[in-house]
Amino acid sequence: MSIDDRLDALEREMRRLTDITEITQLIARYGPLVDAGCAEAVAALWTDDGVYDVDEIRMDHAAAIADMVRSAKHQGFIAQGCAHFNGPVAVTVDGDTATAVGHSLMVMNDDEFRFSIRRATAHRWSLVRTAAGWRVTNRTSRVLDGRDEAPGLFADGLAAERFRG
Amino acid sequence: MSIDDRLDALEREMRRLTDITEITQLIARYGPLVDAGCAEAVAALWTDDGVYDVDEIRMDHAAAIADMVRSAKHQGFIAQGCAHFNGPVAVTVDGDTATAVGHSLMVMNDDEFRFSIRRATAHRWSLVRTAAGWRVTNRTSRVLDGRDEAPGLFADGLAAERFRG
Amino acid sequence: MSIDDRLDALEREMRRLTDITEITQLIARYGPLVDAGCAEAVAALWTDDGVYDVDEIRMDHAAAIADMVRSAKHQGFIAQGCAHFNGPVAVTVDGDTATAVGHSLMVMNDDEFRFSIRRATAHRWSLVRTAAGWRVTNRTSRVLDGRDEAPGLFADGLAAERFRG
Repeated sequence: MSIDDRLDALEREMRRLTDITEITQLIARYGPLVDAGCAEAVAALWTDDGVYDVDEIRMDHAAAIADMVRSAKHQGFIAQGCAHFNGPVAVTVDGDTATAVGHSLMVMNDDEFRFSIRRATAHRWSLVRTAAGWRVTNRTSRVLDGRDEAPGLFADGLAAERFRG
Repeated sequence: MSIDDRLDALEREMRRLTDITEITQLIARYGPLVDAGCAEAVAALWTDDGVYDVDEIRMDHAAAIADMVRSAKHQGFIAQGCAHFNGPVAVTVDGDTATAVGHSLMVMNDDEFRFSIRRATAHRWSLVRTAAGWRVTNRTSRVLDGRDEAPGLFADGLAAERFRG
Repeated sequence: MSIDDRLDALEREMRRLTDITEITQLIARYGPLVDAGCAEAVAALWTDDGVYDVDEIRMDHAAAIADMVRSAKHQGFIAQGCAHFNGPVAVTVDGDTATAVGHSLMVMNDDEFRFSIRRATAHRWSLVRTAAGWRVTNRTSRVLDGRDEAPGLFADGLAAERFRG
């Protein structure tokens, strides 16, 4: 292989790894930021017109996401003691867009040494490469309570076929 | 350093990072796929003769893993609402094979805003580099209920010595 | 771009990705090692004078961390069945030091198919690049029970501003 070919291959592979790492790192910021009530920094994970669509509430742009973080309901979660515990995500990059899927647990403090799980949720993230790095265009989230939509997000985000018994 | 030496070093390091990223991404697909009942895609994480050995059931090849996903028991978990929440894994690559260890929680829906943890499990994954990428040759999983085998999987997968009081 | 410039750019980017990967992998070892009682290997994640400051106990150097793992209290957790389930971390590298933030859940076995969450915890990790790789200089951890310090660790570690209602 020529030097040019080796450099080309390295640059291609570097782009692929960088994309995956930047996306997993962007998403890893969500839980800590939302639990700390960092309203602006949470919203800045999304594009300005990004959507956060969760069964309890739908937010149609980044400013609405910041409002959710500042809301009495969310501030009440923080005051009670709350962990939006997000797991690792599986990422699929396609040029300048990407999809990621993963679980979260919303864990609430009940008493000393006692916590309970309020929600286990399926998430499908859509992302876009911007001049400032990867940003979320859509996070769709459904509670894993048996409703078909929730596992449907996983299958859709991984382009995998579900068994139908 | 010569251009050739710099390229060699970059290619070596790129291989190392790519291996770790591909393995963590492969494993990150497991939970979402199994919770969505994507039987074939779950099985395809393993080699054809790959083993999934968990205390509740032992599967001796990929086809048996797909059967487990299609089973009435697993489909019942999905219908009730279930999260196979897998944490990050610590990966050790050794040439064309690798080992990874990590936890999972199996979380079940009980009622609205109420979920419980059915299992907390220790996993040791063995993987092999194939022409199609990394695949699982063995996933051994034991429940963290005090049985010695479960933490033993972690120590073994990390080649670390356990304190014996 | 000249060959030299392309190599320089690749080496810079490789360093950045390697740092993030090594730090996330170092931290991914903590939970499995501590649940397996690998006292020396847990302590070796820290520098010799590294600090682990958690609300239940403060350890001022690596040897004290190994002592904690060997303690009757921690060994009792292992015997009962315990998962120190640590989530993904968001990493910020600044030259030869770095900060990472993330959640953990401490999950205990109560009975067959019954586990409970003893703690949901916010962590801020400080790390340093050493000749032997990245090591922890400080892990500060506070329970997410509504105390202001816990979400404060997240905001501090991500240099993000909290909303104050």
